[in-house]
Amino acid sequence: MEAFPLNFKKKDCKIVVAVDESEESMYALSWCLCNLISQTTINNLILLYVKSPPPVYSSLDVAGYIISGDVIRALETYGNDLANSVMGRAEDICGKFSTDVTVERMVGSGDAKDVICNIVDRIKPDTLVMGSHGYGFFKREKGLVGSVSDHCAKHVKCPVVIVKHPGKI
Amino acid sequence: MEAFPLNFKKKDCKIVVAVDESEESMYALSWCLCNLISQTTINNLILLYVKSPPPVYSSLDVAGYIISGDVIRALETYGNDLANSVMGRAEDICGKFSTDVTVERMVGSGDAKDVICNIVDRIKPDTLVMGSHGYGFFKREKGLVGSVSDHCAKHVKCPVVIVKHPGKI
Repeated sequence: MEAFPLNFKKKDCKIVVAVDESEESMYALSWCLCNLISQTTINNLILLYVKSPPPVYSSLDVAGYIISGDVIRALETYGNDLANSVMGRAEDICGKFSTDVTVERMVGSGDAKDVICNIVDRIKPDTLVMGSHGYGFFKREKGLVGSVSDHCAKHVKCPVVIVKHPGKI
Repeated sequence: MEAFPLNFKKKDCKIVVAVDESEESMYALSWCLCNLISQTTINNLILLYVKSPPPVYSSLDVAGYIISGDVIRALETYGNDLANSVMGRAEDICGKFSTDVTVERMVGSGDAKDVICNIVDRIKPDTLVMGSHGYGFFKREKGLVGSVSDHCAKHVKCPVVIVKHPGKI
């Protein structure tokens, strides 16, 4: 019985919440704030957003280059604005809960499932929290190789909480 | 923002922990006791164990019937003893954590992934906690149709916590 540590809840607790533009991920964040944040712990919440991979760049002539450049810049701006919007919304939710928690933003870019797994592997949080399906990057990649949450639950080492929005089941 | 309830943590909280004979499921139970049990909530913990399906009964003659009957009874006894052993161990772990929690046993029989999903669907807990791979019923069915935890994470409606034993990753 000695194999089971009685001090799972460390003094310093690091939780990664993967957020996107979906209601479900905001619901997962709310669940986390209500159920995993302890008053007896220093809680570090890392909001992780993954932007779409950069579009494939193609320009064979000068005119094409100019148009492609504009489109790419517009997409990059859109991606950054979306990331800021999602993060702002997530921080608003954190502020609504009267919990003692420090919130940090982290923005990645690329294949969501790989980015999440790589970051979790690097920063070694105590828990990863995420939505089940989602309507942002979760949905974008769902049809190809199974959902992002499936993949992360299989591959990350820490406990994973998968939260479904009750209205979307 | 009004869509996100601030009262996720109800006064009465019901958590199902799927346990089997593996170290991993006991680790998942410990994680649950440390991270999901609040002092401000009435916590109802349901320990769910799923026994193997009854063996296929085959007897073509009287001698065969007698032998089969003995074997079946021996297997049933073994299954019940194992269930009691796992439950006793799980309750010991609950007792080691100084938390205010009522613990209830629930034993099912059949295909673990279906039994867990059906029970969760029926009793509607706030959270389901389970190990990732396991060496009991989780392992028995892993090779056939993916792990039990994969299946449950996809099909149950409540938040699911999947915990991996750090020594088994």
